[in-house]
Amino acid sequence: MKKYFDPEDKTVKLLEERIAKDGRIFEGDILKVDNFLNHQIDVDLMVKLSREFYKLFEKDNVNKVLTIEASGIAVACLTAEQFGCPLVFAKKSRTSNMGNNEVYASPVHSFTHNNDYNAIVSKNYLSPSDRVLIIDDFLAKGSALMALSDIVSQSGATVVGAGILIEKVYQGGGDLIRSRGIRVESLARIASMDPVKGFVFE
Amino acid sequence: MKKYFDPEDKTVKLLEERIAKDGRIFEGDILKVDNFLNHQIDVDLMVKLSREFYKLFEKDNVNKVLTIEASGIAVACLTAEQFGCPLVFAKKSRTSNMGNNEVYASPVHSFTHNNDYNAIVSKNYLSPSDRVLIIDDFLAKGSALMALSDIVSQSGATVVGAGILIEKVYQGGGDLIRSRGIRVESLARIASMDPVKGFVFE
Repeated sequence: MKKYFDPEDKTVKLLEERIAKDGRIFEGDILKVDNFLNHQIDVDLMVKLSREFYKLFEKDNVNKVLTIEASGIAVACLTAEQFGCPLVFAKKSRTSNMGNNEVYASPVHSFTHNNDYNAIVSKNYLSPSDRVLIIDDFLAKGSALMALSDIVSQSGATVVGAGILIEKVYQGGGDLIRSRGIRVESLARIASMDPVKGFVFE
Repeated sequence: MKKYFDPEDKTVKLLEERIAKDGRIFEGDILKVDNFLNHQIDVDLMVKLSREFYKLFEKDNVNKVLTIEASGIAVACLTAEQFGCPLVFAKKSRTSNMGNNEVYASPVHSFTHNNDYNAIVSKNYLSPSDRVLIIDDFLAKGSALMALSDIVSQSGATVVGAGILIEKVYQGGGDLIRSRGIRVESLARIASMDPVKGFVFE
């Protein structure tokens, strides 16, 4: 597939190197990056990565960044800082808010936690004139990203694309979403991972 | 009480003005600031406020910022950016992890949601040499802040203080924690609030 960013870019290499060094792979296709992303956050690294997202989407007139709680909030906030725009984070709700007229809602299945929830955004914070960049830390089967994209569509706003830190390419979610015409940029693309053999990046 | 910051500081006034303009007060002492802090985040304002936290604690050799998921993550991340240090966010767990040797845990009662949970931090991310600045968006009765402070103490690290965006002074949590010798700096201090009469700031 086409790479929008320079694969030799040193900042992008920084993320792959960090995953290779500190990522822990568990049975069941679980990747833990708790020491720089999902519990302790290496903010210096995240600032550099947020600048990559800015470079990738700087010509797209982004006026709002959208993510989903909780661990994506940090890099999404730093990305919004780069664009000088607000951040909206979707909330996770176990209860059905589908009949609630005040929110946009879309269902998500978490394969990691094997549960279902709704992603919820108040109608106050998305409008048809918005040009929305979706930011998230992980992309696997794409359920959360599809829900966020669906919510933006419900509002009549435009999805300019999605910026992802770590894509598990072999899970297929990225290609599914790209096939629907959404530009998805992932800074680290894992082609395969295995507790014994480690990581292979694209 | 002693004010560590200049109460005439324009940035601090920005936050009070924003609360007065956009904060919505509901019965039961509920304050909603969804349009700039708890759902949509005014990142430009948060950057300015994070610089205030930096000014307040810049001589304290802070090397780690600690917060609790989810809505405090944004301003905590921007504050960590100012200090050039990592951010750790405590996770909320409904299950008892008290017997888990891999984490520090402390109980929290949420008066807003009327539920109990544990704040959890992996032992990997706090150590005795750490000088920790706790950042959170709200301080009311102080249950979450006490738990975070307790977790830092368990690890042997030092709490240099706490930076809070909005303190409901009349709830008493801030004074309780100050009475234990912890420096607490709140950028907006609500002396009283009422759905009809609105806000009074200290």
